Amino acid sequence: MESQQEYKFKVIGTRPIRHDGVDKVTGRAKYGADISLPGMLHGKVLRSPHAHARIKSIDVSAALALPGVKAVITGQELPELAPGIYQMGEIPINPQYLSRNIMARDKVLYNGHAVAAVAATSPHVAEDALALIKVEYEVLPHVLDVRKAMADEAPILLPDLRTSGTLEKSDKPTNVASQLRFARGDLAAGFKAADVVVEREFNTSMVHQGYIEPHNAVAQYNEDGHSTVWVSTQGQFSVRELCAQILKMPSSNIKVVPDEIGGGFGGKTTVYLEPLALLLSKKTGKPVKLVMSRSEVLRATGPTSGSYIRCKLGATKDGTITAAEIWMAYEAGAFPGSPVGAGCMTALGPYVVDNLQIDGFDVVLNKPKTCAYRAPGATNAALGVETVIDELAEKLGIDPLEIRRINGSQEGTAQPAGPKFLRIGCLETLEAAKSSAHYKSPLPKPDGKPVGRGVASGFWFNAGLQSSAAVSINSDGTANVVTGSPDIGGSRASCAMIAAEVLGLTAEEVHPVVADTESIGHTDVTGGSRVTFATGYAVYEAAQEAVRKLKQRAATLWKVKEEDVAYQDGVVSCVNNGQEPMTLKQLASKLVHAGGPVSGQASVNPRGVGPCFATHIVDVEVDPETGKVEILRYTAVQDVGKAVHPSYVEGQIQGGTAQGIGWALNEEYYYDESGTMRNSGFLDYRMPTCLDLPMIETILVEVPNPGHPLGIRGVGEVPIVPPPAAIANAIYRAVGVRMTELPMSPPKLCKAMAEKNAKK
Amino acid sequence: MESQQEYKFKVIGTRPIRHDGVDKVTGRAKYGADISLPGMLHGKVLRSPHAHARIKSIDVSAALALPGVKAVITGQELPELAPGIYQMGEIPINPQYLSRNIMARDKVLYNGHAVAAVAATSPHVAEDALALIKVEYEVLPHVLDVRKAMADEAPILLPDLRTSGTLEKSDKPTNVASQLRFARGDLAAGFKAADVVVEREFNTSMVHQGYIEPHNAVAQYNEDGHSTVWVSTQGQFSVRELCAQILKMPSSNIKVVPDEIGGGFGGKTTVYLEPLALLLSKKTGKPVKLVMSRSEVLRATGPTSGSYIRCKLGATKDGTITAAEIWMAYEAGAFPGSPVGAGCMTALGPYVVDNLQIDGFDVVLNKPKTCAYRAPGATNAALGVETVIDELAEKLGIDPLEIRRINGSQEGTAQPAGPKFLRIGCLETLEAAKSSAHYKSPLPKPDGKPVGRGVASGFWFNAGLQSSAAVSINSDGTANVVTGSPDIGGSRASCAMIAAEVLGLTAEEVHPVVADTESIGHTDVTGGSRVTFATGYAVYEAAQEAVRKLKQRAATLWKVKEEDVAYQDGVVSCVNNGQEPMTLKQLASKLVHAGGPVSGQASVNPRGVGPCFATHIVDVEVDPETGKVEILRYTAVQDVGKAVHPSYVEGQIQGGTAQGIGWALNEEYYYDESGTMRNSGFLDYRMPTCLDLPMIETILVEVPNPGHPLGIRGVGEVPIVPPPAAIANAIYRAVGVRMTELPMSPPKLCKAMAEKNAKK
Repeated sequence: MESQQEYKFKVIGTRPIRHDGVDKVTGRAKYGADISLPGMLHGKVLRSPHAHARIKSIDVSAALALPGVKAVITGQELPELAPGIYQMGEIPINPQYLSRNIMARDKVLYNGHAVAAVAATSPHVAEDALALIKVEYEVLPHVLDVRKAMADEAPILLPDLRTSGTLEKSDKPTNVASQLRFARGDLAAGFKAADVVVEREFNTSMVHQGYIEPHNAVAQYNEDGHSTVWVSTQGQFSVRELCAQILKMPSSNIKVVPDEIGGGFGGKTTVYLEPLALLLSKKTGKPVKLVMSRSEVLRATGPTSGSYIRCKLGATKDGTITAAEIWMAYEAGAFPGSPVGAGCMTALGPYVVDNLQIDGFDVVLNKPKTCAYRAPGATNAALGVETVIDELAEKLGIDPLEIRRINGSQEGTAQPAGPKFLRIGCLETLEAAKSSAHYKSPLPKPDGKPVGRGVASGFWFNAGLQSSAAVSINSDGTANVVTGSPDIGGSRASCAMIAAEVLGLTAEEVHPVVADTESIGHTDVTGGSRVTFATGYAVYEAAQEAVRKLKQRAATLWKVKEEDVAYQDGVVSCVNNGQEPMTLKQLASKLVHAGGPVSGQASVNPRGVGPCFATHIVDVEVDPETGKVEILRYTAVQDVGKAVHPSYVEGQIQGGTAQGIGWALNEEYYYDESGTMRNSGFLDYRMPTCLDLPMIETILVEVPNPGHPLGIRGVGEVPIVPPPAAIANAIYRAVGVRMTELPMSPPKLCKAMAEKNAKK
Repeated sequence: MESQQEYKFKVIGTRPIRHDGVDKVTGRAKYGADISLPGMLHGKVLRSPHAHARIKSIDVSAALALPGVKAVITGQELPELAPGIYQMGEIPINPQYLSRNIMARDKVLYNGHAVAAVAATSPHVAEDALALIKVEYEVLPHVLDVRKAMADEAPILLPDLRTSGTLEKSDKPTNVASQLRFARGDLAAGFKAADVVVEREFNTSMVHQGYIEPHNAVAQYNEDGHSTVWVSTQGQFSVRELCAQILKMPSSNIKVVPDEIGGGFGGKTTVYLEPLALLLSKKTGKPVKLVMSRSEVLRATGPTSGSYIRCKLGATKDGTITAAEIWMAYEAGAFPGSPVGAGCMTALGPYVVDNLQIDGFDVVLNKPKTCAYRAPGATNAALGVETVIDELAEKLGIDPLEIRRINGSQEGTAQPAGPKFLRIGCLETLEAAKSSAHYKSPLPKPDGKPVGRGVASGFWFNAGLQSSAAVSINSDGTANVVTGSPDIGGSRASCAMIAAEVLGLTAEEVHPVVADTESIGHTDVTGGSRVTFATGYAVYEAAQEAVRKLKQRAATLWKVKEEDVAYQDGVVSCVNNGQEPMTLKQLASKLVHAGGPVSGQASVNPRGVGPCFATHIVDVEVDPETGKVEILRYTAVQDVGKAVHPSYVEGQIQGGTAQGIGWALNEEYYYDESGTMRNSGFLDYRMPTCLDLPMIETILVEVPNPGHPLGIRGVGEVPIVPPPAAIANAIYRAVGVRMTELPMSPPKLCKAMAEKNAKK
């Protein structure tokens, strides 16, 4: 197999049926909640009804007395951890905060914060027991708005918190956990050079990933301290490490078995129930299972940040952006760690901007601790930049795709965070959007209501991180591929296809396996759009090693030199003598006489991560009476590097777009004044269904990533970045109002249209 | 890590607690029968009540009509297979015979032969359904005695069977499946040179391995043809291949997950229930579980051969054996394949014999098809040779250990089958026995009954075969070891210890895993005493590869050349500059910045198998009234190569010896005239318990195997070889009768003593 430039793909780029498909459509796939062990107990978690309160006492005696109840734990039973950061590979974590989020100690910091947990003989008994736990609270003032949380007079969530970051440090208690600034050029000069300057403020609501499958965990803690956790997770190795940190256990004493996962989108990269299940199992001597309700998932897991953003851009008449000033405050939830840094890194990613200043603030408030959600932080930032650019284009009379092309990033452009881009597909994506059938078509006008077309771009840097893979040749000439990457988006198929490509097999002849923490080398989480890139890289290397060994074996059989054996399209041949070439199937049956079976293995931490660019086009119809926005047509154009399995790439783009549309139009954490989430179910937390959406059209632009032997880039996250901005721009073109608040739900749109009409 | 001669072991040779110990003693280990899947059905097998009969018809309609019954299968639903041998790696199998043993077609060949199988909603319904299946049989004459089965007038079991082998071929239908001969020198001259010649005939009964856990299988056959089988087996890859052959499925479409195994001793190296479970699952669309009863295990799985043996040896006055003539016929059971070949290979293994002729016959008869049982075939053969040598020694007035030493095999001795021994420990073992406290002690005389001391030696060649292993370094500096070898004798511990030795970790810091057929490279069965040798070899190579990569990573971190990095006792150091050495734990936490995680992998088919020798000493007391033999003291001396975990080596020796004692004194397949086994339960099939045995003393002689980097030899099988002969010799010394029939049970011993007394 030669380098990517010369290689003619045979498997990569085709669309075989996914290996896990039949299991999933026939209901045979085992998800976390399907796990059942002999003697297993069931756990439930008691959660705070207050947004902010001091826990004065907890009396568990009545709960413990309930027949069937085997154990009750409170925060006191989790080890006390030192403050500070622990470096989990390349990812910094704060074990103390993590532990306190999993179970409150002296204070509860959000409605839904875990206070106690029960293990009992049935989930119903456990639930009854929760009602018998008496918690005495002293209710404290709470804060739910990011700017109010930054104010001097705000109620302080974490008394030890001090601001850290690039701007200034402070010794005052604060809710501002950290701040950072990217700056370059001369901001004032840049704005002075501009012919047009637009500045706007934006507010976005906290939203949830909305995966179908709730969080779950089954744990079995053995007498010798060795434990097993079965869980639906994006990262079995992270679960192992995080549980070890929280419970002060040696991490390799915990074996984590990843079950099938019913969606994660970043939200299943941390732990909630796992340490509680372990602790309850340790206390009872039995396996313990915990499964969240939908309400618990929404109230107490990790949604993504609501945010407040100010965005100011200037441009000359020819459309060149001369300066950008962006100020962003992101809700971290109850503990530090919003994705504001990624927001700062991505906001201006698609553009060449010489004079810029981007400030980001990470702010704690009385909402659940945020977690990763598909291109975390980038969608919020893009709402600001991409609608302001639209306004600039409008004022300058330039086509909105053209103004993006004029300023578009390309190879050599310095990113806001510093590093220069290698070969990227930003301009190619814009060109493909411009020449698309959708963009060239007239706006549809189905029933006379106002319609508009909007565009927006998005950028995501993607991740690399560590991955391991093993490839073994079966005695029938097929192969197995073992990885440590839970499959949330078709990565079993993509990894199998990469191995098939190298080995000259069909995709169906390769059997992909996702293994537990003891059965494969360390592998970081499925996240950062990294699996097909980085785990795929390990699979590629492991398959290459298998090919090398196959050539050795053939050389042994033929009694020739190894370098005289060639391997091409699943056939070994001898270059120098008259040996009859052998297929892999033939060779596999002879390995026993040539040194034994063949396997290859690789662990990687690849550095050639290829970033990803998208441009979306959307046609909307606005009902002027109700404010309801109908998506008439939607086209997502994206540079996907080499698309290993185009259908699953398209699926990622369609799924991310659908989530972005929900975020744009309907989804929000709706809190009452007491700090209680009032829409903690899928009936009221309104996600789009297929009835709400047209078919999302996709255009795959394939600009190979020079940092990967097969040209692969991550593709899964960037599709969620443009939709809110694109829809806001389309709404403007339809009804003339610039929406600056997410969700752009009917009440808000009605209000905006009414205000505009009032001004006339 | 240097070669075995120079290496000072730190972990190997110590006695850590086995990694799977706590799970097993607390009942948490999952055996095959513990597996339960949603919607699972339960299967039962209808078995023949006749030893030999033609199946005229099977009517399953009443069974199918029983509520809860979901499917019934008969032999007609298994694919018809072509006759002949299929080469499964290095092991020849006959898929047609295998299939017919699993489910009879036109004829049943033994009482217990499977005739039909039912899947139903509960095991009880399935059992009720069996009674509703109407089978019309035409009973045929049967044969249960190996010599009668060889006679011309014998009922023929397999009409197509023709004798094959080294002696002569025939076109006549026969029950003699094959014959072989090893011969060298001049037999007549050898006997002529002898001063004493002893010739005796021996008969041994069919015996069972007697593993605690019955056979089981759970299968799930998916709509796309992919299937999973959970089973307690000695070889998940064999189960996969055998099921594929029997059901004509692509082998890699079957994933076999090995559960914990409650004993196998060779008997769990083939398939019985697995293909039936797959077929029932295919037919019903549900997972199906089958578990045998004890009676089914005894009647219908694979015991080892009963045999008829003639043994003639001659020796000169100085004790030199001048000639050996051995003729052996082994019961194969209903289909060809007794271990008579191994009997021929091992009979004279401990001795230098220049003139010899060994004939072996593989004979089918109306008993269950035999399977492997610990050193298959060697115990029968040793009964003959080792008691005749005892008689020679007695007649020549030579100490029975001394006559063995005089003739003892050593490096360079040609085995009966041809190849010459490399470095072996035959003589060292005899010397150790001679100088043992036991042999030097006077015979105990506890209560005035006759006592005697016997000795016997044994030889087993051991196996190599194919193994794969993967070693990965955890982020906390511990390691995982993945193999494909089910752990029947402590091999998790031995493999972990080998990895620990190479990596400089403690045994507890290495986590051993036994993986399914898709998660590790091809690995042959756990059998032939091969796991610690061959899988251990793969573990050693994989750990070495991990060490090489750890050195690379350290070189990257230190920015030095790889060859300047040393790894010793779990510490990397730089030979040429002032870098502070790092422990593996320190290095493991830095791998993320040095290229990523570290794993190593190896697949091997090692050729340096080291054979194994044992000499046993036993003191018995015979009750002259009842014929009951009491074991007063027992010492097993064995060359074990390098003992990786001495306790588990001792455990293997003690376990094998206990089985050999049971075989010697009590165990037998007891058939009535109709060919029905009359003792098919552990109450009547009398195995020794701890109440029947003294502590078995062991003496480990460590002669390193030059064919293994750590000097490892297989140890598990040879301990079963000497006991019957040693006990027969001890009985003779006690009461003066030469027992030539196994088991030497009270009735037989009483009869022999009465005959001896009658002669007086």
